[in-house]
Amino acid sequence: MIKAAILGFGTVGSGVAEVLSLNEDKITRTTGGISLKYIVDIRDFPGNRFESLLTKDFAVVENDPEVKIVVETIGGARIAYDFTKRCLLQGKTVVTSNKELVATHGIELMEIAKEHGCTYYFEASVGGGIPIIRPIAQCLASNNISEIYGILNGTTNYILTEMKKNGLSFDTALRQAQEMGYAEADPAADIEGHDVCRKICILAAMCFGHHVYPEDVPTEGIQNITAVDVDYAEANGYKIKLLGRALEHDGKAYAYVAPHLVPVDNLIADVEGVMNGIVVKGNAIGTAMFYGPGAGKMPTASAVVADVMDAAKHLKNPKKPNWADSDPEHTGNADDLEYVWYVRSDAKEGIGLEIAENEDEYVRITPAMTKQAVLHAYEGSKVFALIRVLQ
Amino acid sequence: MIKAAILGFGTVGSGVAEVLSLNEDKITRTTGGISLKYIVDIRDFPGNRFESLLTKDFAVVENDPEVKIVVETIGGARIAYDFTKRCLLQGKTVVTSNKELVATHGIELMEIAKEHGCTYYFEASVGGGIPIIRPIAQCLASNNISEIYGILNGTTNYILTEMKKNGLSFDTALRQAQEMGYAEADPAADIEGHDVCRKICILAAMCFGHHVYPEDVPTEGIQNITAVDVDYAEANGYKIKLLGRALEHDGKAYAYVAPHLVPVDNLIADVEGVMNGIVVKGNAIGTAMFYGPGAGKMPTASAVVADVMDAAKHLKNPKKPNWADSDPEHTGNADDLEYVWYVRSDAKEGIGLEIAENEDEYVRITPAMTKQAVLHAYEGSKVFALIRVLQ
Repeated sequence: MIKAAILGFGTVGSGVAEVLSLNEDKITRTTGGISLKYIVDIRDFPGNRFESLLTKDFAVVENDPEVKIVVETIGGARIAYDFTKRCLLQGKTVVTSNKELVATHGIELMEIAKEHGCTYYFEASVGGGIPIIRPIAQCLASNNISEIYGILNGTTNYILTEMKKNGLSFDTALRQAQEMGYAEADPAADIEGHDVCRKICILAAMCFGHHVYPEDVPTEGIQNITAVDVDYAEANGYKIKLLGRALEHDGKAYAYVAPHLVPVDNLIADVEGVMNGIVVKGNAIGTAMFYGPGAGKMPTASAVVADVMDAAKHLKNPKKPNWADSDPEHTGNADDLEYVWYVRSDAKEGIGLEIAENEDEYVRITPAMTKQAVLHAYEGSKVFALIRVLQ
Repeated sequence: MIKAAILGFGTVGSGVAEVLSLNEDKITRTTGGISLKYIVDIRDFPGNRFESLLTKDFAVVENDPEVKIVVETIGGARIAYDFTKRCLLQGKTVVTSNKELVATHGIELMEIAKEHGCTYYFEASVGGGIPIIRPIAQCLASNNISEIYGILNGTTNYILTEMKKNGLSFDTALRQAQEMGYAEADPAADIEGHDVCRKICILAAMCFGHHVYPEDVPTEGIQNITAVDVDYAEANGYKIKLLGRALEHDGKAYAYVAPHLVPVDNLIADVEGVMNGIVVKGNAIGTAMFYGPGAGKMPTASAVVADVMDAAKHLKNPKKPNWADSDPEHTGNADDLEYVWYVRSDAKEGIGLEIAENEDEYVRITPAMTKQAVLHAYEGSKVFALIRVLQ
């Protein structure tokens, strides 16, 4: 019976305890059995069914040699970073759903794990329950991957879906998302794209083999998307979706986060509400897509517990780091790439094909060009909206 | 450098040789290197770039202890069965794309592999390049799976897509599929559902833990689907899709193959043309979908080579069989289950909600009931079409 501990008894942490208990039979059949020994949290949970396992003292876990697998569901990159490092230094395998920590310190933590004969697992850090990290590492290992993009944040996808389906303004849709519990009181991390940024950093590293740091990834959110643009997009066969995207071009890897007009015949346009979808392009498989709930207690716990089970089977054969450290020579700035643009401006004449006109507003789709070039071309005009079009 | 051989140099076999060569750098980085030593085929391939590796004599592979991994891309369940068994008996790991062989002899071959310290891999046998076998075994290992269904055959999905998009009759769409090379001259295995049957047997075994034999799976194809039904379905918010489906109900596993009316807001309704899509429902993840090219030289080779790479990393740690032998006590007959039905008949009065009427034809959607019950209810009437509706 392998002993495990959970650090952080919030939504995901409590989901992990629940899944371990709910599916204990199957988990035991596959792994020989995983027993939860401690749950570390500074809060009290009186009457909780797992109360007897709770402790406020992380050192109890750190110093118990019986605990081989530690689940980190604290979140953030401070305490979680410290605790993760200390576990790995003790040779304990760590399983996390913490995208911020993986995106900022992943390579360092994987190297520490390697040195200490354990593994740092993070399937749940991207796409919630959707299998994506392991499929890239294993099922698509035979491919050179040229591009990956996805709807990686349920909150913003819910807002965009509501704007389109029910003609809501951004503000109304955001308020509704907050009322439904899909958006936080301070929604900045979601709507400004930072959450997606961390996830695309992890996916880019998986696909292209070296760490990509969030601060190097141009990131736009959806806060400037208006109902008007949603309507023009729809009338022309597009839906507006916030995408994290990474691609390889001329030997360099690029990553960025931005809203895109997505053609409705692209399957990812049908990923609605809080669901996530991730498209991968490889030189053997062509195009594949992974779809499912990108967040939430049980779906995220599903991925965490799958990692725990994998860890249990590989305690004696730890995995190698999934990527190397950042490689400035093979990393480009996504602002240097050319994109097709949707431009809504007051310019009567302008580069691109006019697709709509209304009073003093002109909407055009440009040829592929850099952001700088399109801004230059529209210099002197008021540009109300400038959004990439996914090709 | 690990030595491998390919048995059968047809479409998939030659794709495997190509992918091993095309992505050699990445494959070597991950595995330390895989070298193709032989290709066995009774045909000659003069001028082929792999000509020097070709041999007509399987015994050369069988008796070469240096060959640790054998790719079986012969197809069928006769010669492929014999060669696979002989390789496994020699302790050689076998990787296959052969759904017929896995569906009919999978458990036996996995047991032989286990006894001889090797593994029988078959990711490519379902869904072509789409990662599905390994995600079920690993990423969704933490779930009890309640249901799996999918569009598992590109030929029939192409025909149904063309019937809907271009208003073609079944015969015209089939002829077009043959002209495009998507359907074989003898299309029976595809259009009668046998190909899907083999694949759902494998998926059912993966999900529910015991072998399901094709002969025990009720199988309907698409040969009786008419343009009229495609139109009625569309007018009522459905697309007709051929699904393989397996589910657990009251402790028993059920599997069947049949066309279904799929609601257009189900993402799988948007899986068009030759693409495949597979939906999995688990008690932690909820619903996930996997999408991609379900056949073809390079996509299928993508999955085969990923298995070869996994095999190369696990030569000393062979995998356990993925399921046990068939279990009649926990297997039900899918004809005993209740479904919602689309019924087109000449019955003026009949069970179900009338959704269309035209001259002497009445179209209804029934409540959930067994096939026997619906046939009984319409006894004495002419039933022109009887199709399940996916709930």
